[in-house]
Amino acid sequence: MSDHPMQGLYVPALTAVDRDSNPDVARWIEHCRWLLAEGAHGLCPFGTTSEANSFSIDERTDMLTQLVEAGVGPANLMPGTGCSALTDTVRLTRHALDLGCGGVLMLPPFYYKAVTDEGLFRSFAEVIERVGDDRLRIYLYHIPPVAQVGFSLNLIERLITAYPKTVVGLKDSSGDWNNLKAILNAFPGFGAFTGSEKLLLDSLRLGGAGSINAVANVIPGPVARLCDTWQGDDAEAQQAKITAFRETFADYAPVPALKQIVAYLRNDPEWGHVRPPFLPLGEAEAAKIVAKIEQYGLMKTPA
Amino acid sequence: MSDHPMQGLYVPALTAVDRDSNPDVARWIEHCRWLLAEGAHGLCPFGTTSEANSFSIDERTDMLTQLVEAGVGPANLMPGTGCSALTDTVRLTRHALDLGCGGVLMLPPFYYKAVTDEGLFRSFAEVIERVGDDRLRIYLYHIPPVAQVGFSLNLIERLITAYPKTVVGLKDSSGDWNNLKAILNAFPGFGAFTGSEKLLLDSLRLGGAGSINAVANVIPGPVARLCDTWQGDDAEAQQAKITAFRETFADYAPVPALKQIVAYLRNDPEWGHVRPPFLPLGEAEAAKIVAKIEQYGLMKTPA
Repeated sequence: MSDHPMQGLYVPALTAVDRDSNPDVARWIEHCRWLLAEGAHGLCPFGTTSEANSFSIDERTDMLTQLVEAGVGPANLMPGTGCSALTDTVRLTRHALDLGCGGVLMLPPFYYKAVTDEGLFRSFAEVIERVGDDRLRIYLYHIPPVAQVGFSLNLIERLITAYPKTVVGLKDSSGDWNNLKAILNAFPGFGAFTGSEKLLLDSLRLGGAGSINAVANVIPGPVARLCDTWQGDDAEAQQAKITAFRETFADYAPVPALKQIVAYLRNDPEWGHVRPPFLPLGEAEAAKIVAKIEQYGLMKTPA
Repeated sequence: MSDHPMQGLYVPALTAVDRDSNPDVARWIEHCRWLLAEGAHGLCPFGTTSEANSFSIDERTDMLTQLVEAGVGPANLMPGTGCSALTDTVRLTRHALDLGCGGVLMLPPFYYKAVTDEGLFRSFAEVIERVGDDRLRIYLYHIPPVAQVGFSLNLIERLITAYPKTVVGLKDSSGDWNNLKAILNAFPGFGAFTGSEKLLLDSLRLGGAGSINAVANVIPGPVARLCDTWQGDDAEAQQAKITAFRETFADYAPVPALKQIVAYLRNDPEWGHVRPPFLPLGEAEAAKIVAKIEQYGLMKTPA
């Protein structure tokens, strides 16, 4: 049904910021390169884990341009482009296409609540018509715990039916296996990624496209390996380790925790900075997390 | 304690759009002028009722510039400038100050949920430091039913204490009288506006600054009059009429309903358009509303 060349692990790369919370583009690009070198199949810059929605439209376009100009191939980039304002979404999406990005990850408009499926359909239709580019490949970003606004099965079906070449996949960050299972069963061939580390193997077995998940920022190799070898004998064991790794710091806000783990792995405290409204995780808390997750032997120090 | 020259009715003006959902600036400016001519003390362009968060940063700066260039005095403008991205908020706020706006209505960063008071405090502190302008007057925009992220009494107190000349007021759209009462009692002199039509008189009696409310888009005169004459004998009667008027269409999404009422008052169907994800209210539904609200005799046909 759909045409989604994107498969495997797409990492919602953390966005490095300096102590003034401005983008630290050099550190960010270094991190992006490392994720790909470790086996990630692609990247989703400006996902929720990237603090995307804390960066301005100008910052996002400027950073993405620099990433591609630095030589990171755009074909395997699926940047987040969904904003609360329709016209900002159009601008970011056009910019991503102009750079050659293979797809975009699109949040629904998320400020107004209790909007209808019809209203969301018209919003996506309007974005698609305004962008007006046959190369556009949209992955719907379903993350109701944060955006509050999400995609029903009916809405997904309407969008696929109306725009079969354009609406080619989805990231399900509901954390609800029944929802992802229903999507996988209802739309074979649709590129459905899970946003939950723990659901990766189950989703791949039902035809899932892979995973876009936060924890892959610190264990890209193991998560990519599960995507590549999920039919192997040790797939269950791989999944169990990844799940346990993630659950070890489930009580912490993921973005500050992951940034401190990167700071630890790189021995680079600058990685601990976040942009408000997030707060940095203290080094003492970070040390506690690191002490626990080391046991899984999944982490690797960047060269 | 604070220095808030803004008092009375500040209307979150509806944003006219054409059939392609692009801003219809001429109609919008005409509406803004009419609201002021009818007695509104000021305007809040780009509030929730304005569909503000459906318009891009570029659209918002361009429109506000045109409004001021058209001769609408900026001293009584309190445009909404709070975005999910800190740096977009800074850009819109600086632009409003450059135009001479007397204040800004600032949403907290609203994408990430479950953020802490400390994180929100740092976000506002960072905006204030980055804008770096003594003329800045911020009205905090508390609208938890929509933004989901809001202001606790502790957070308000911290912000007032740290920035007494800058954080001078708040709009409370919680709809919760106990919350507004607590704010009015805790912070005398703070410019606390109610976002709820029905709480206007009660809030004025406790020292409230006035109202920023949706329904004033169609009955600006009567709402402004209550702000001006709330100590008069007929204040209760005025409030009762306004409350009944609003409750008549409480079951409808307010923005499409109010736009259709404006379309009716102006005999101008172009006013019915909305930007997705909102849907226009059908004319039949609008006729039902109009038939009911006519009984209150509060509406006036623009000249």
